[in-house]
Amino acid sequence: MSGVKGNALVAQSGGPTAVINASACGVIQEALKCKRITGVFGAHNGILGVLQEELFDIGAEDPETVDMLRTTPSAALGSCRHKLKKLEESRADYERVLEVFKAHDVRYFFYAGGNDSMDTAAKIKDLSAQAGHEMIVMGVPKTIDNDLAFTDHCPGYGSVAKFIAVSVMEAGRDTESLYTFDTCAVLETMGRNAGWIAAAAALARRSPEDAPHLVYVPEARFTRERFVQDVRRVHREFGRCFIAASEGMRWEDGTYVAEDRSALAKDSFGHAQLGGVAQVLKKIIEDELGLKTRWMMQGLTQRNAMHYASRTDRDEAWLAGAEAVRQAAAGTSGFMVTFERIADRPYQIKTGLARLEDVANGEKKLPREWMNQEGNMPTQQFIDYARPLIEGQVDLPTQGGLPVFMRFTRKWLPKKCRTYSVR
Amino acid sequence: MSGVKGNALVAQSGGPTAVINASACGVIQEALKCKRITGVFGAHNGILGVLQEELFDIGAEDPETVDMLRTTPSAALGSCRHKLKKLEESRADYERVLEVFKAHDVRYFFYAGGNDSMDTAAKIKDLSAQAGHEMIVMGVPKTIDNDLAFTDHCPGYGSVAKFIAVSVMEAGRDTESLYTFDTCAVLETMGRNAGWIAAAAALARRSPEDAPHLVYVPEARFTRERFVQDVRRVHREFGRCFIAASEGMRWEDGTYVAEDRSALAKDSFGHAQLGGVAQVLKKIIEDELGLKTRWMMQGLTQRNAMHYASRTDRDEAWLAGAEAVRQAAAGTSGFMVTFERIADRPYQIKTGLARLEDVANGEKKLPREWMNQEGNMPTQQFIDYARPLIEGQVDLPTQGGLPVFMRFTRKWLPKKCRTYSVR
Repeated sequence: MSGVKGNALVAQSGGPTAVINASACGVIQEALKCKRITGVFGAHNGILGVLQEELFDIGAEDPETVDMLRTTPSAALGSCRHKLKKLEESRADYERVLEVFKAHDVRYFFYAGGNDSMDTAAKIKDLSAQAGHEMIVMGVPKTIDNDLAFTDHCPGYGSVAKFIAVSVMEAGRDTESLYTFDTCAVLETMGRNAGWIAAAAALARRSPEDAPHLVYVPEARFTRERFVQDVRRVHREFGRCFIAASEGMRWEDGTYVAEDRSALAKDSFGHAQLGGVAQVLKKIIEDELGLKTRWMMQGLTQRNAMHYASRTDRDEAWLAGAEAVRQAAAGTSGFMVTFERIADRPYQIKTGLARLEDVANGEKKLPREWMNQEGNMPTQQFIDYARPLIEGQVDLPTQGGLPVFMRFTRKWLPKKCRTYSVR
Repeated sequence: MSGVKGNALVAQSGGPTAVINASACGVIQEALKCKRITGVFGAHNGILGVLQEELFDIGAEDPETVDMLRTTPSAALGSCRHKLKKLEESRADYERVLEVFKAHDVRYFFYAGGNDSMDTAAKIKDLSAQAGHEMIVMGVPKTIDNDLAFTDHCPGYGSVAKFIAVSVMEAGRDTESLYTFDTCAVLETMGRNAGWIAAAAALARRSPEDAPHLVYVPEARFTRERFVQDVRRVHREFGRCFIAASEGMRWEDGTYVAEDRSALAKDSFGHAQLGGVAQVLKKIIEDELGLKTRWMMQGLTQRNAMHYASRTDRDEAWLAGAEAVRQAAAGTSGFMVTFERIADRPYQIKTGLARLEDVANGEKKLPREWMNQEGNMPTQQFIDYARPLIEGQVDLPTQGGLPVFMRFTRKWLPKKCRTYSVR
């Protein structure tokens, strides 16, 4: 298998990150050097671009544009949330993928994404083997959620962790300055199932008076009574309270806090008020403790915060992409690149490999023991784990006081297949 | 009057900014050099600290700590939203202020804040004159809202403008990458009465396809019908739509969009949903156009974003503080320092002065003609005005991948007056 020659296709999938383009850059720059790879193509919008035969020639892009992927956030190739179903359920889709790959002599497929993308990649590998289309498929890890199994951490996490931490440091100083007016504050982070992102807020804390004073994640038990007690205690001690909370927090019965209406008092019109986690917690604090509370929901800005990305994360993201190509060139197929941590101080990692199927079926939650017993603050073990991931800053090209990001010119490959409508 | 000798008191008021500490730094560093000023004190939490006689000796702080004010966001002295009422209504408060000033031989008072703070400062000046306590009172402009009259712009605005612009650039790339899933996005900015902050989002835009595609401010007419038309048009052209909207947006009848319930469809439980402007606009887009929409509300993080502050803004903030002391040393009293723009390219300003009373009663809105006719995008005139204000970046001292901010040690002055309870 190691001798296969042909074109390489790179695609990005799922929610963007500040550094998924750095991974694409690693794939592209390494692939352009690889003799077995004849052309380097990009799929527009992940697997959707394959299904719709929207492919463009990355070899035709200015090398400087390609290099600027290192400093451009989000998915420059275009991304999607399209997941191929089981082979039996959507055979037509899989056959279409193969049709397009064959038509464009795609022999190397590099897919950057999370669990679902690794699942798609694994299926494409199986199908091409069944169909006798010799092909190498490699996964590149990507997720701000940091929830992929078999890897110490995921590219994308370090940068969102760094941005959340600095945001908490800065907004925390606001509450500290103006506690005579706004006494509490809640910052809601992304992380629907795992608490890694919210936990990163704890990196902001160098002394007990520093924000955040309380951190809540989906992995630890959360009750209204305990929450009110926590805030009351912190407020008594410091005269203010800054809270970081994961959007994925759940009540004891497993329902999402953000979706719970019973927790919300009715407004003056008799209507329940609905919002995210931050708004629910604000309401509880104001109802139960009468403390004026501010809330923040940074949304998409947090996962694309290139202007404060972690240099470590960015460089590792590039490495993951480049390593996927090196492995592929050596004949490896059906694996995702992983990181194995050799040491915390000085921080050192090496790359490894995990089977696509295994990654697809795994999920790595924040270990419960990395939260304190009360479930309201990450432990030192978490800090030791996360600290190296946020080290260093990325210098961005700048114009008029703001960064300059790249866009591909997208020289489309001529379509060779029939049109196909994606369901 | 120019010969008065005694102590100087510096205080911060209102909502914090990334650079209000830089202004305090300018006051302190200049005051420490001034021979007429014998001691430099800080009021804890603005005028509240005066009323409660909570003053500390800044001269006793490490000069390095003082210098780190330049790179520390929010109000390190502590701030408040306490406004002294009319002299007739709260004579006791004014007499208390004078009592504390006399007890600590405060002869120079520097107050950094917005309209309300200038109002307080003006009243203190009048009262001390009436009471025969010779005193110099100077205002230092501070507000992210950029709504102070008599000055070209306000320290604090350039930094929030820069942060909003980069946030829109970055989150805009998310919508561009993932428009097959999330088609629209709304970022809500601060600015309760003036649209300066939301308008700054337009700095992110270098070409028509760049975010933001639509910008809404309180100064321009806004209707549901027009909004739906705008989003439909942008979506047809680009397949996505990124919107920046001021929290202070109003409907034609003058009511706040954020507080309007009639604009909101009922949810499946028959309850009206309530949120900020971003949530209202999201709901309208989803109801009327069926386009999946994300929203963001950065809250306190935007006004404290030191990690991406404008160097121009930071340096001018320091200058405003230092200039207030230089003017005071020359005998000027009862004025706020202003900026007068000499040229856009190359950008050049000089300082000026405005009477405290005049600033207190003025408010500078975004000129209507700096928005296009449709009221959905700032014009080039606004860009030319705002661009120089966001130039340059501030280098922060760093530890463990995050900035290091200062705190005063606060050596309290011994209390000399009776206790006083603030109402």
